[in-house]
Amino acid sequence: MLKILADKITNEAQVFGNIVKIDHFINHQIDTYLLDQIGFDIARQYPESTKILTVETSGIAFASSVARSLNYLPMVFAKKSESAITQGEFYKSKAYSFTKKQEFNIRVDKRFISPEDKVLIVDDFLANGEAAKSLVDIVQQAGAKVEGIGIVVEKGFQKGRKVLETLGQKVYSCVIIEKIEDGKLTLK
Amino acid sequence: MLKILADKITNEAQVFGNIVKIDHFINHQIDTYLLDQIGFDIARQYPESTKILTVETSGIAFASSVARSLNYLPMVFAKKSESAITQGEFYKSKAYSFTKKQEFNIRVDKRFISPEDKVLIVDDFLANGEAAKSLVDIVQQAGAKVEGIGIVVEKGFQKGRKVLETLGQKVYSCVIIEKIEDGKLTLK
Repeated sequence: MLKILADKITNEAQVFGNIVKIDHFINHQIDTYLLDQIGFDIARQYPESTKILTVETSGIAFASSVARSLNYLPMVFAKKSESAITQGEFYKSKAYSFTKKQEFNIRVDKRFISPEDKVLIVDDFLANGEAAKSLVDIVQQAGAKVEGIGIVVEKGFQKGRKVLETLGQKVYSCVIIEKIEDGKLTLK
Repeated sequence: MLKILADKITNEAQVFGNIVKIDHFINHQIDTYLLDQIGFDIARQYPESTKILTVETSGIAFASSVARSLNYLPMVFAKKSESAITQGEFYKSKAYSFTKKQEFNIRVDKRFISPEDKVLIVDDFLANGEAAKSLVDIVQQAGAKVEGIGIVVEKGFQKGRKVLETLGQKVYSCVIIEKIEDGKLTLK
């Protein structure tokens, strides 16, 4: 547990139903001092990693910070949509966004994961585990090892951790929200 | 000019028509050591900044690194699409993507820019200046000052710099590509 983040969530998060709004320091505006504390906290759980992998958009800053804390490992972000610049070959996987209520495709250029890699997957939120599961799928398509999964904020009352642990993956979250009741959250 | 980046582009960029492909170290996989050199190089041009602003996706890592180099300023990334989590009020602007051949809307929560701010706008590429122009528009809607614009790679043969300088803005680019001819690029 990362105390500086737990304190900030306890004091400043707004809760709307099951949605935890922390967009003033995590996923719209970013507190970049806190960002580096988070980066170091995740990095030290997985010192053997050789590459950092996330998915656009809001995981990118955190994945960069983790990479920096591991002596400047390369960081790769999976892309969500096709762009006009798509030469080459990609690993592809599908995921479902419960927030946006739609399926999306993610892809990673095959040049960027090799079978020797020990890939640390990083994301800002873990809820149902859809995005992380797709990233695991992509790493396995490449024949590489998933070193572990590092999450900034986990909703412990949703199924994400179970989904990933069932796949044999180690999950570390800086903060785990145990429950949300009557607009108040309790951390684990 | 940032020599470490200029050398890497000269040695490793692939050119397809007017497209400079540097996705193995800038905008799909990121060389995080280079990232921090870029962050520092942009930061020192604009030491008076109070906030860093970019637009998702590929500007996020660079904006975070600039923010860190300016004693951990807050970093804001404008969002491109509506999500299910949209309470509150936003500054909005439109831009046209020549890569994707479509218009897009960007928005920033009004809580994150105040009239006292001196905002440094950061982005990975400058070509026609569409994204940066929209970010300038958003800063001005907030009644704040644009401190300047910091770019990783500028296509000097396109109109972006002229568009932004006509708006009275100062533009600094780590590397400027002067021309592309017969699949070869020349840096300024």
